Amino acid sequence: MEIKVIKDVLEANNYIACKVKEEIAKRQAMMINIIGSPGAGKTSFIVKTIQYLDIKSVVIEGDVTSDIDSRKVAEFGIPVVQVNTGGGCHLNANIIDLALQELSSSAENAIIFVENVGNLICPASFDIGEDFKVVISSIPEGHDKPYKYPAIFEKAKVTVLNKIDLMKYVDFNKDYFYEGVLTLNPKGHIFEVSSILGDGMKEWTRWLKLQFMKKFNR
Amino acid sequence: MEIKVIKDVLEANNYIACKVKEEIAKRQAMMINIIGSPGAGKTSFIVKTIQYLDIKSVVIEGDVTSDIDSRKVAEFGIPVVQVNTGGGCHLNANIIDLALQELSSSAENAIIFVENVGNLICPASFDIGEDFKVVISSIPEGHDKPYKYPAIFEKAKVTVLNKIDLMKYVDFNKDYFYEGVLTLNPKGHIFEVSSILGDGMKEWTRWLKLQFMKKFNR
Repeated sequence: MEIKVIKDVLEANNYIACKVKEEIAKRQAMMINIIGSPGAGKTSFIVKTIQYLDIKSVVIEGDVTSDIDSRKVAEFGIPVVQVNTGGGCHLNANIIDLALQELSSSAENAIIFVENVGNLICPASFDIGEDFKVVISSIPEGHDKPYKYPAIFEKAKVTVLNKIDLMKYVDFNKDYFYEGVLTLNPKGHIFEVSSILGDGMKEWTRWLKLQFMKKFNR
Repeated sequence: MEIKVIKDVLEANNYIACKVKEEIAKRQAMMINIIGSPGAGKTSFIVKTIQYLDIKSVVIEGDVTSDIDSRKVAEFGIPVVQVNTGGGCHLNANIIDLALQELSSSAENAIIFVENVGNLICPASFDIGEDFKVVISSIPEGHDKPYKYPAIFEKAKVTVLNKIDLMKYVDFNKDYFYEGVLTLNPKGHIFEVSSILGDGMKEWTRWLKLQFMKKFNR
């Protein structure tokens, strides 16, 4: 019985996700769904990425409650919409559909960064119409995350290993982490970054720009 | 419609949680529901706590998948049962009921530590029959967690601020964190610890032992 309901919710969500995907293509935009634990550094990663990119960018901030993250983004002059789930543990396509209407023309010819709710589990099941998912895992969280939360590491096109500057202060086996990610996702891309210091941002944003150019044969 | 189903699930859960609570009282045991983000350090915190306590302790390890954490606990000779949710984002009372049957007499006159699935959102809604909840938040996750995930900080009797040894390497405003916790939960207890180095473990385990003694007028 419960499974039936979940299936219906997912089907309804996928239907709207297709609509969002069409809307984004019409706007000549690209959308990235950024997923990670609370405190993995998603907001800082988005802000630093946009600073390194020379492409118009907008942000949709997802949180259970509060506008802390969107205020942080707005401080840098980046167009941003905050969406609150009011307790919900993930974003869905419907919320994104509404946020896109809010963003209107600022989300044209642009990269739309969606920061999902801080959660490694539930957001993995809900397509929001994104071009691809990025999972952010940070050094202090430990090297076992791909083994313990495999769904998101399997589905994400990109794994970002953030807070690489804290590597020297904690016990983190990088080989074990890479093996975990690449076993689940042999074609996955992994970027090591420090969103605070900027380490690795050039490599990541170069790759990202290429995806954006390729999408519309720019 | 969806809300109706969630309500039924919660009601059914609460019914079993009451049954679990009775079973635990019968066993002269105390159960703690430990909740935190992926990588907050829940397993290390439990192991270190048990090492500092002179009270019989057992562990129920909750994960989406894998037995990484229960193997870590078993290495220290601590009785442990692993429960996997197979994708589910929180434990529920039913799983705990089964785990208690598995633990049988080892969970008598003991503290039962339950490590919930790594998630700051969903576990807050599901009572599992525990005596109280402990939320673990770690320094690298940042000082804004109580403001962004208020439900669990409001419900937890104890907030543990873990990885205090990393304080000097990251930007963390402790006053802001405390204000967030205590506004939501004025009677809440906060303990600062390093589960790796042992800092703060004496204060925390002294308090915990007192709760255990008080429960049965020992």
